[in-house]
Amino acid sequence: MPEIILSINAGSSSVKISVYKTPSDGKSQVPTQLAEAVIEGLTAPPAKLKYERGDDKIKDKELDDIKSQEDAFRYILGHLTKDSGLPELNDKEDIKFTCHRVVHGGDYPRSQIIDKQTYHHIEELSDLAPLHNAPALSIVRAVADILPHAKNIAYFDSAFHNTLPDYICTYPIDQAIAKKNKLRKYGFHGISYSFIVHAVSTFLNKPSNQLNVIALHLGSGASACCIKNGKSLDTSMGLTPLAGLPGATRSGSIDPSLMFHFTHSAGKPSRSSSEKMHITQAEEILNKNSGWKSLTGTTDFGKISSSDRPEDVLAFNIFVDRISNYVAPYFTKLDGKVDALVFAGGIGERGAKLRQAVVHGVKCLGYELDDAKNAQQVQNVVTDISAGGARYKTLVVQTDEQLEMARGVLVDKDRFVGKK
Amino acid sequence: MPEIILSINAGSSSVKISVYKTPSDGKSQVPTQLAEAVIEGLTAPPAKLKYERGDDKIKDKELDDIKSQEDAFRYILGHLTKDSGLPELNDKEDIKFTCHRVVHGGDYPRSQIIDKQTYHHIEELSDLAPLHNAPALSIVRAVADILPHAKNIAYFDSAFHNTLPDYICTYPIDQAIAKKNKLRKYGFHGISYSFIVHAVSTFLNKPSNQLNVIALHLGSGASACCIKNGKSLDTSMGLTPLAGLPGATRSGSIDPSLMFHFTHSAGKPSRSSSEKMHITQAEEILNKNSGWKSLTGTTDFGKISSSDRPEDVLAFNIFVDRISNYVAPYFTKLDGKVDALVFAGGIGERGAKLRQAVVHGVKCLGYELDDAKNAQQVQNVVTDISAGGARYKTLVVQTDEQLEMARGVLVDKDRFVGKK
Repeated sequence: MPEIILSINAGSSSVKISVYKTPSDGKSQVPTQLAEAVIEGLTAPPAKLKYERGDDKIKDKELDDIKSQEDAFRYILGHLTKDSGLPELNDKEDIKFTCHRVVHGGDYPRSQIIDKQTYHHIEELSDLAPLHNAPALSIVRAVADILPHAKNIAYFDSAFHNTLPDYICTYPIDQAIAKKNKLRKYGFHGISYSFIVHAVSTFLNKPSNQLNVIALHLGSGASACCIKNGKSLDTSMGLTPLAGLPGATRSGSIDPSLMFHFTHSAGKPSRSSSEKMHITQAEEILNKNSGWKSLTGTTDFGKISSSDRPEDVLAFNIFVDRISNYVAPYFTKLDGKVDALVFAGGIGERGAKLRQAVVHGVKCLGYELDDAKNAQQVQNVVTDISAGGARYKTLVVQTDEQLEMARGVLVDKDRFVGKK
Repeated sequence: MPEIILSINAGSSSVKISVYKTPSDGKSQVPTQLAEAVIEGLTAPPAKLKYERGDDKIKDKELDDIKSQEDAFRYILGHLTKDSGLPELNDKEDIKFTCHRVVHGGDYPRSQIIDKQTYHHIEELSDLAPLHNAPALSIVRAVADILPHAKNIAYFDSAFHNTLPDYICTYPIDQAIAKKNKLRKYGFHGISYSFIVHAVSTFLNKPSNQLNVIALHLGSGASACCIKNGKSLDTSMGLTPLAGLPGATRSGSIDPSLMFHFTHSAGKPSRSSSEKMHITQAEEILNKNSGWKSLTGTTDFGKISSSDRPEDVLAFNIFVDRISNYVAPYFTKLDGKVDALVFAGGIGERGAKLRQAVVHGVKCLGYELDDAKNAQQVQNVVTDISAGGARYKTLVVQTDEQLEMARGVLVDKDRFVGKK
């Protein structure tokens, strides 16, 4: 009998929940999406609901008194169980699995059932990225209370990068302190990169363990990943998601001594700090008040791309340049044996001008776009936008972290239900 | 009549002085070196003198009571004027020009005569890199006292990079604070890169303003530079020399939030701080206690390269990897039109194994070494070590910052003596 899976993605001011059912034949490894609900604006009330089930759509419905991730989860759960068009989910006990996207998973090499011990461990390692893990942790607690019968599973953005070699993930700093404080490159966006590997493998009809990809996940947070034989060989983010590419409000890599010249109180606790969550002013400034926003006043890269104000042109050129700083070395790390350069994430999927500029920047490596294909809005999971004569393929992938987590439930079901 | 130029390079525990005379024909733009003196070990007494004049050599002569850059300068000056084999410099008034290597020159686009105003300005901008500028400033003061008749000229490691485009040198951070605190990418090792451009231009018989080079200055401090038409287009160091490649005791780029997880007192003043010089613990740790030393216990990359201890192998592989992260994007920034990949600096000149590993890593771009040529000790200013069939040239350049500064005196003499 089909079972219900919820994929839950909690951000600092939003909660997104996708509802899947397992395939009824028990053989296919692709769950079917039934509905998707998003509540946004938790930190800028009134919060708003977006809901889609087949052709039924609700858009920007204003909600009163929804101010936390837990509020949002309770509201969406009520909405789903009351939706008569969703007979598979009439009662909260119909939900067998909940998948939680957790940004920082430390050394966890794969997804984990969340029991008390795991929860405690995730809480501990969240010290490394409190800004990023806090929303997920607060919803995990709520879900455990509300759905005691479901299996709660944590999917980590860092887990895909557990294959990074030592010379990539080691920082040349005091090794005793590095070990004690778990200071190394972890990398993130791994659920998306895992989806990309599956999607490109299917599209090119090549086994994923033979697939070499330069993948760019470009959204309000952006990163690059060098994928060799289906595994992460290098990635741009580091100890935390701050390192590497700039983003909507994030600086990306800067001189490590810069913050101490930015403010004398770089190391002091920020206003968002609490007894449970230690955040320095530097981390708050570099994660929340930098990036496009600090250069242009907006976090909307679409607007930036289509503007000719000098500050927008500068922000656009900075992003193109910093991306090319990863594409080229990943090309050489794959020794030029690259199945595809992949654009994904909101900007990767919609930013035709950005894709054009990035690919133009690496044309001497053998990349070239078909301008017409690049200009069209992508419809499929994978779209080939390469020029006919290009030596190397460039693809756009509509990544789907929610689906990737739900698929993980099918693949790992035996592990999760304790059969091994 | 030939005039005497001293090129002075003051490090945190050493002073190096090269003595040149201007060409007697007044036409050639290459000064002739007469002698070179180095005092090392200022911070680990007894200090030791190394001296070379033609075939006359002194090695490791222990010196009493030489503890500061000023002590060292006075001692060397006395030694030079008393050396009967150096008749051109019998009296300190014979010295017409002194050149000082200053690491951080802020926005200065070229060398500057040091008058009170300039000195004050250099002192101000040294706030950005106090660890690096302090030794030069202390010797500049001493030289101004001791040689009031000479022209004192500051050569800045940052000046060569004054051509960086805005999208390279801008950090995506609050722009008001960036402007106020002068927070941008400056880049360093510029005196060496300037020498490399001259040397490769002569070697390839190609005008320097048409020369495209990927240059690697690899010493105890290491950086990379993308040189297009003889000018700096990008470089690995940033606001300070800390960013980019790791070095003997320097971490290079790390996650900008790492230090706040390394120690809770990252932003507090270090023990080296004084009223005049504000250095945070983070800056001291990342500049002085990281790099090879923190990984292997030694700062000697030659030892690391020839060892098979796991920590040495790791340090070697980290360096090769981080270097390749700059070579490949600089190749694409030059659109594959590259006259030479250049290795310079102590490790660049002597590290045959490192060169082999770096070039092997980018072989898919068209680089290949001649193993025999690579294995030989370099004798000339420029040595071609490329394989016969390689699409692109790889060169080793024996860089000479002392000579580059002295040459600058000849080129800019009119500017310095105020004729203009």
